Amino acid sequence: MKVGNQHFRTIWCDKTQMTVSFIDQTQLPFVFDVKQVSHYIDIVNAIASMQVRGAPLIGVAAAFGIALAVKEQCSDDFISKVAQTLIASRPTAVNLQWGVTRMLNTLLPLPTSLRLAAAWLEAEQMADEDVKQNQQIAINGLSLLKKLKVTKEKLNKADEPLNILTHCNAGWLATVDVGTALAPIYAAHDAGINVHVWVDETRPRNQGLLTAWELEQHGVPHTVIVDNAGGHLMQQGLVDCCIVGADRIAKNNDVCNKIGTYLKALAANDNGVPFYVAAPSNTFDLSIENGDMIDIENRHVNELSDIKGFDEEFTARVIKINRSSRMLNPAFDVTPASLITHFITEESVL
Amino acid sequence: MKVGNQHFRTIWCDKTQMTVSFIDQTQLPFVFDVKQVSHYIDIVNAIASMQVRGAPLIGVAAAFGIALAVKEQCSDDFISKVAQTLIASRPTAVNLQWGVTRMLNTLLPLPTSLRLAAAWLEAEQMADEDVKQNQQIAINGLSLLKKLKVTKEKLNKADEPLNILTHCNAGWLATVDVGTALAPIYAAHDAGINVHVWVDETRPRNQGLLTAWELEQHGVPHTVIVDNAGGHLMQQGLVDCCIVGADRIAKNNDVCNKIGTYLKALAANDNGVPFYVAAPSNTFDLSIENGDMIDIENRHVNELSDIKGFDEEFTARVIKINRSSRMLNPAFDVTPASLITHFITEESVL
Repeated sequence: MKVGNQHFRTIWCDKTQMTVSFIDQTQLPFVFDVKQVSHYIDIVNAIASMQVRGAPLIGVAAAFGIALAVKEQCSDDFISKVAQTLIASRPTAVNLQWGVTRMLNTLLPLPTSLRLAAAWLEAEQMADEDVKQNQQIAINGLSLLKKLKVTKEKLNKADEPLNILTHCNAGWLATVDVGTALAPIYAAHDAGINVHVWVDETRPRNQGLLTAWELEQHGVPHTVIVDNAGGHLMQQGLVDCCIVGADRIAKNNDVCNKIGTYLKALAANDNGVPFYVAAPSNTFDLSIENGDMIDIENRHVNELSDIKGFDEEFTARVIKINRSSRMLNPAFDVTPASLITHFITEESVL
Repeated sequence: MKVGNQHFRTIWCDKTQMTVSFIDQTQLPFVFDVKQVSHYIDIVNAIASMQVRGAPLIGVAAAFGIALAVKEQCSDDFISKVAQTLIASRPTAVNLQWGVTRMLNTLLPLPTSLRLAAAWLEAEQMADEDVKQNQQIAINGLSLLKKLKVTKEKLNKADEPLNILTHCNAGWLATVDVGTALAPIYAAHDAGINVHVWVDETRPRNQGLLTAWELEQHGVPHTVIVDNAGGHLMQQGLVDCCIVGADRIAKNNDVCNKIGTYLKALAANDNGVPFYVAAPSNTFDLSIENGDMIDIENRHVNELSDIKGFDEEFTARVIKINRSSRMLNPAFDVTPASLITHFITEESVL
């Protein structure tokens, strides 16, 4: 996707120099900074500190981490040790385990002399596959948005934009490129459909600001709102559909996603607004019967108490809530399957 | 209510010195500061800058503003001019108009020689009436909480606290004393009932931090959460009831309250959690048929983009959202009557 007028992925490599570059997302939306690293430990730190974030992206980042490790040593022992370190850098993310495991399965059967070239090839291929998968999600989601546009035209609202509400960041920053929930929105915009996105702030980590930033870079009209406002906007008829991503989808189609998704699904249901979940098909976890069985991570309360922002000249952190207050910070919630209108995957619209 | 171990109202006067004192709420929860003022213009500024806030409180503050004005001049012209300035200090608040009108109705029929003493007497009486009304809301709401406690005991959950979720600040800081939504909670705590309050952060103005502060001062156990988390907690069975205040209640019982109230009412309904609205009976506006007719105020987007917090040594403001982003900041929403279990007023439980 575009930053300024230049095309960027969130992560890429230089196979000749054997370096990996990525956009440092901890500084967005205030500072756009690209980090170039040469050692696997830099990837471990980038994942742990959330310089790279988003389930699909950190899976690919971990693969590049393995490639950097193989540059140093290509023994089974060393690669396996690095694999464990990478997985531990953010233990709750399923994709991290997936990315590392795929690299191990590719490299360990090979003779050590072939591992270096194979590692870079495999990591790069994983990045490319993520992009292709998301492009397919874009195409499948676009068909739904086109139908909504036709409905709107029949209601003599052809001049109004198609208003889409999203929660959290499931854009290209959460993937290698294109995004999941935002993929159909970019596709619609590029197809000349007049779209406008309501961007939930997404407390406590404010990922909505990443969403606003990437929409702005791509020229997609959007408006930032507090998480509290979405229900009111739906009551006012100002939302044509919701599209969100997913962290895990149970066998019965209950969706685990960023905390607050459930409230938006309730409001959509109450106001007859379609509620779409866009995610690659590997997000469906058939080993989990229903949402009740998903363990919801409580994250550090500093995410709630402290705010990072821009203080005229530099990025500053202020304490917004007395640290003496007891706080609770559940990171995800479960949206019952009954509240979801469609799933958009790279394979189909379910 | 208590600050430290000392009893405070949010506003009070010294009739001998003819001064008015109030807690400066713009500095809470980080700094507790009492301002003492002698001129009506200081009250105008305090209301406009939200040093005093909350519908019941600003009505009484305006009454004290008139009393300070009469100290300077007691002519019809001057009093009426000051009345207009006070009403304009926050044009959307109904109680402000109510407080000023009541003072004018009391003072203007009197000979000028009697106006000064009458002004201070009337303003003080309005403050006292607010407190008495809220004490009655406390008693009426307590009866509901006692019933919930009995239900919990029958389910062998006598050892668990009664978990109450509230949105925004409808505590004693929003009134002269005691509060509205928090009044029954304080009453339950003082009656020895084991209560615990889930405090919504309440973006964008973060009034939840005022709620947390006053609960902490009074020793009521509580936990601050982001607005996104309430639905998830209800799904987990961790909320026994919700209590919120109200800004206006239509003839059909639709409730206009702080933005985000509607989403919590939907989640309460979806999870069988009682949803109570606590408000003085003058909040019922019989001139409004239903919630659709209530005009929702869009406030300045700087409330969304900028955050005020504590920067180790001093209170600081950071820009959290690029000011170049388009933002929308609706301040209230409407909760349909069908989602409300009970109204708690000073007159009864409806």
